[in-house]
Amino acid sequence: MASITANHPISGNPLISFRPKNPFLQTQTLFNFKPSNPKHSNSSFSVPIVRCSIRRRPEYTPNHIPDPNYVRIFDTTLRDGEQSPGATMTTKEKLDVARQLAKLGVDIIEAGFPASSEADLEAVKLIAKEVGNGVYEEGHVPVICGLARCNKKDIDKAWEAVKYAEKPRIHTFIATSEIHMNYKLKMSRDQVVEKARSMVAYARSIGCEDVEFSPEDAGRSDPEFLYHILGEVIKAGATTLNIPDTVGYTVPEEFGQLIAKIKANTPGVEDVIISTHCQNDLGLSTANTLAGACAGARQLEVTINGIGERAGNASLEEVVMALKCRGEQVLGGLYTGINTQHILMSSKMVEEYSGLHVQPHKAIVGANAFAHESGIHQDGMLKHKDTYEIISPEDIGLNRANKSGIVLGKLSGRHALQAKMLELGYEIEGKELDDLFWRFKSVAEKKKKITDDDLIALMSDEVFQPQFVWQLQNVQVTCGSLGLSTATVKLIDADGQEHISCSVGTGPVDAAYKAVDLIVKVPVTLLEYSMNAVTQGIDAIASTRVLIRGENGHTSTHALTGETVHRTFSGTGADMDIVISSVRAYVGALNKMMSFRKLLAKNNKPEGSAVI
Amino acid sequence: MASITANHPISGNPLISFRPKNPFLQTQTLFNFKPSNPKHSNSSFSVPIVRCSIRRRPEYTPNHIPDPNYVRIFDTTLRDGEQSPGATMTTKEKLDVARQLAKLGVDIIEAGFPASSEADLEAVKLIAKEVGNGVYEEGHVPVICGLARCNKKDIDKAWEAVKYAEKPRIHTFIATSEIHMNYKLKMSRDQVVEKARSMVAYARSIGCEDVEFSPEDAGRSDPEFLYHILGEVIKAGATTLNIPDTVGYTVPEEFGQLIAKIKANTPGVEDVIISTHCQNDLGLSTANTLAGACAGARQLEVTINGIGERAGNASLEEVVMALKCRGEQVLGGLYTGINTQHILMSSKMVEEYSGLHVQPHKAIVGANAFAHESGIHQDGMLKHKDTYEIISPEDIGLNRANKSGIVLGKLSGRHALQAKMLELGYEIEGKELDDLFWRFKSVAEKKKKITDDDLIALMSDEVFQPQFVWQLQNVQVTCGSLGLSTATVKLIDADGQEHISCSVGTGPVDAAYKAVDLIVKVPVTLLEYSMNAVTQGIDAIASTRVLIRGENGHTSTHALTGETVHRTFSGTGADMDIVISSVRAYVGALNKMMSFRKLLAKNNKPEGSAVI
Repeated sequence: MASITANHPISGNPLISFRPKNPFLQTQTLFNFKPSNPKHSNSSFSVPIVRCSIRRRPEYTPNHIPDPNYVRIFDTTLRDGEQSPGATMTTKEKLDVARQLAKLGVDIIEAGFPASSEADLEAVKLIAKEVGNGVYEEGHVPVICGLARCNKKDIDKAWEAVKYAEKPRIHTFIATSEIHMNYKLKMSRDQVVEKARSMVAYARSIGCEDVEFSPEDAGRSDPEFLYHILGEVIKAGATTLNIPDTVGYTVPEEFGQLIAKIKANTPGVEDVIISTHCQNDLGLSTANTLAGACAGARQLEVTINGIGERAGNASLEEVVMALKCRGEQVLGGLYTGINTQHILMSSKMVEEYSGLHVQPHKAIVGANAFAHESGIHQDGMLKHKDTYEIISPEDIGLNRANKSGIVLGKLSGRHALQAKMLELGYEIEGKELDDLFWRFKSVAEKKKKITDDDLIALMSDEVFQPQFVWQLQNVQVTCGSLGLSTATVKLIDADGQEHISCSVGTGPVDAAYKAVDLIVKVPVTLLEYSMNAVTQGIDAIASTRVLIRGENGHTSTHALTGETVHRTFSGTGADMDIVISSVRAYVGALNKMMSFRKLLAKNNKPEGSAVI
Repeated sequence: MASITANHPISGNPLISFRPKNPFLQTQTLFNFKPSNPKHSNSSFSVPIVRCSIRRRPEYTPNHIPDPNYVRIFDTTLRDGEQSPGATMTTKEKLDVARQLAKLGVDIIEAGFPASSEADLEAVKLIAKEVGNGVYEEGHVPVICGLARCNKKDIDKAWEAVKYAEKPRIHTFIATSEIHMNYKLKMSRDQVVEKARSMVAYARSIGCEDVEFSPEDAGRSDPEFLYHILGEVIKAGATTLNIPDTVGYTVPEEFGQLIAKIKANTPGVEDVIISTHCQNDLGLSTANTLAGACAGARQLEVTINGIGERAGNASLEEVVMALKCRGEQVLGGLYTGINTQHILMSSKMVEEYSGLHVQPHKAIVGANAFAHESGIHQDGMLKHKDTYEIISPEDIGLNRANKSGIVLGKLSGRHALQAKMLELGYEIEGKELDDLFWRFKSVAEKKKKITDDDLIALMSDEVFQPQFVWQLQNVQVTCGSLGLSTATVKLIDADGQEHISCSVGTGPVDAAYKAVDLIVKVPVTLLEYSMNAVTQGIDAIASTRVLIRGENGHTSTHALTGETVHRTFSGTGADMDIVISSVRAYVGALNKMMSFRKLLAKNNKPEGSAVI
């Protein structure tokens, strides 16, 4: 069990979060499948009762898990997920996600790829200092991991960032499939083995006792070569061996067999943890991950909502809920340390920050996943809830809208709002609370019924905004099919000075954005624009998201291909007026981009220059 | 091989589509994975070359497939998919989807649940007459299937609808799990067996020679009971036995074993086709479906984009592409008759009509699935395409934007537009072409560069609209944070009369919708509202979608629960002005709802009354 100290020995930072150890806090709710009623049954057959045992998370040692049935969850939302198109997050956003992952009970948080840019390095360092020293439910302290290619500079950067965590890990990788060695690395097998061996040893030599190694594109690698290189890195000090199906190419039986063969044929494998990392190109990532676990993998690499490059990764919620629902019955008694009641909030936060929306029919977290319960599509109640529902919505933290006790109206005060937000899972105070309260009042004056979803949308808009450079004061628009759209915009800069501008455009948003551009004077390209009403009814709050790319600078290095990629920045806005919410989103994205610029200016070098 | 006749013997309709048989038309492109370069390899190991053999679709006999490796694809987008929340389609939309499915090469199209409402019955009948007698590539005529619960009225309705097809099928089902028999049916095992046996026999007795039977919730049923009931329905004349994992509960090994056990233990099973139907509640539907196929199932039930209730069904594109990419290597040589180059168009059409959007990281058809190719996120070219791409975008019909030869400008004429649309896969003429041309010109005047995506958005807006009752002429709006939003709307009714109205609202859309309501005078509830810019840049075309529910009538019967469900209606609109696109979408949804009303009035009875 992690000891609770007042200050971290390396960072010297005070520990930011402490809750008393309570064995009941993380109690997994029983999976609510009920056995058939014996009165109605005319056979001895009945579906077994599914129960998830209440177990403590075993103590953490890098290369060993005391309980053979415990499976570690390694979340790479902030690394693999964040490098997917448009998903760039600010440091503040990454820190929020990392805190949420810790609360969720993730064992290892891969916080980023520090060598990709200065911004990434700073974000990983901050997460290592804060979340890597926080003590969460049941005394849990997550491992903080940084990715590094097999070279000293990458490994140094990763260590520079993660060393502040109580449990730091470096994750290094090199490709081992013929196609990657030939065309990407242009290295022989022997050269690849030597590189892997020496770099794992180097990571150990600089003080990191927890080193993960991945043979990239393992799914298409020669198994014999895999056993050899993995044996060598074990000798060099690797503690976890991760087997990625980089191109999402394998089918479950095949991937399970690969894991089993690696466990059977790799010298020294009994002293390390085997891990899976499955891409979803053929829609098989969850099944492949579970097949890997059944074959002996005890670390599963996943992302929230399954985000990631191309078709993404195995999704945390699917893998964890499958283990929770079927672990005892058909998956060898495997279990995780995840508190599933935080799944939905984690999903919403990642959807908001990454801008990668979740389809309505996404398993576990999609809007329709529990639609039988919504009351919209049915007149009567189902005769028995379990006829069509295998997971209880409450298990993933989905509580029915407006079920909670406090009802807000336009006369509600600041304390009522704060209490309500706490009920919804948000702890806010100070300026954040003031700002939210002000906006709550303006909505309450126009809208009869304020739903939980309305509040959450306003909360996202207010709290998830980056630090502002520019702030929207007013916007006024005339538009329609009868004439030219015209917009007038008033922005306030960081010094409190007002700037007013007007412009015509092809539509109201075009006109308003052009007016903003006239004030802000930073050339950007709008890549995506989308909007959703978050609540039912015509007077709903609309939530807008935009994605922009600056025309200058802002690059980082792609972990796998080594290419320079352009950063893109998303912004969100919420309002009852779609033009206002659109402008808020655009100004938010501009602010996000400018906060990266300020970071660059502070560090006095162009972003991305840290990479060899 | 289906014979080609001038008129169908039952419907008397002329055959609507005929293309000469050409064995090369449906040639599957070779999967473009290349073997490792022997020059760089230092081992004898190399990834085998994947080749899909060019095979003809075997002749159709309900209970037998001459080639043991051929797997039938049964698409239930129009039945299971369409009953998911908000996915209601009009008859015209269903017919469009059915035609596209036939083009795609689907073996069996489940066109609907005729007993659920008069509208459903009419749609299935129309599809049976038109698509069920159409001759597609390589002489393919799809089977048209209608769903029926185990009762005579349902079966009569299904037969009334599908009998016009050249190859009609009735699909009947009853639940066999203890929980469903006890709580939903309140029937004993013997009663359930007798019901199933007698209703399959009834379906055969009225002239249907192709009868599918499903034991609902098979995944949670007692296997011994399954063997028994399935044996009985085989004796009664069932030709296909479908095994549904109704609650998405099983894991692949378990589901594969279930199929294998059914094949081993059911009396008479050698004379029928076994089928899978996997829900996706734990994210395992694709893997379960493939496991079923490997265990001997030769019909796979899927939907486009994996839509369906809750977390949806196994998705056609994932199952088919997995079989295409890995069939020869690791899936026992199984293959399908799908022409994968029509996958993307099918996906877009279903997304448009069902309103169930696809997440960017959806496997195969998501916007990011081939993002490595997009040119936005990378500076250089990858050193070797296959390092990260296992499927070629062209294999699913994804051609790079603006790659096609014809470039349109504001001086382009009607013929150039028609030719361009044909290049993009749309055949249009007559009034549709005129309307599209008019809108194309108005966009071309404002926008420098007209992309393929712009055209497709306008096309969707124009062609995918329901028959209009009301048409939007003009809208003018003033809005913003400085004052009350005010909208003026001019609509034209079916008789060509103009109606003008104005309203204030909390935002521009609220104001405009209220103005529309003042004219149309039909009480509705707005359930969802969303918008996307379909192209990059601030002068992009915005595509809006709304979902409404009328406050009166419009119900149908849910196939599984038997409950009455409220129909909801979606509408889409596209314009460079988001307010105009929003109003177009709303008017479209109202028109869709009213076209259902007109159908009701024609049939002189309340919708849904057909159901017992």
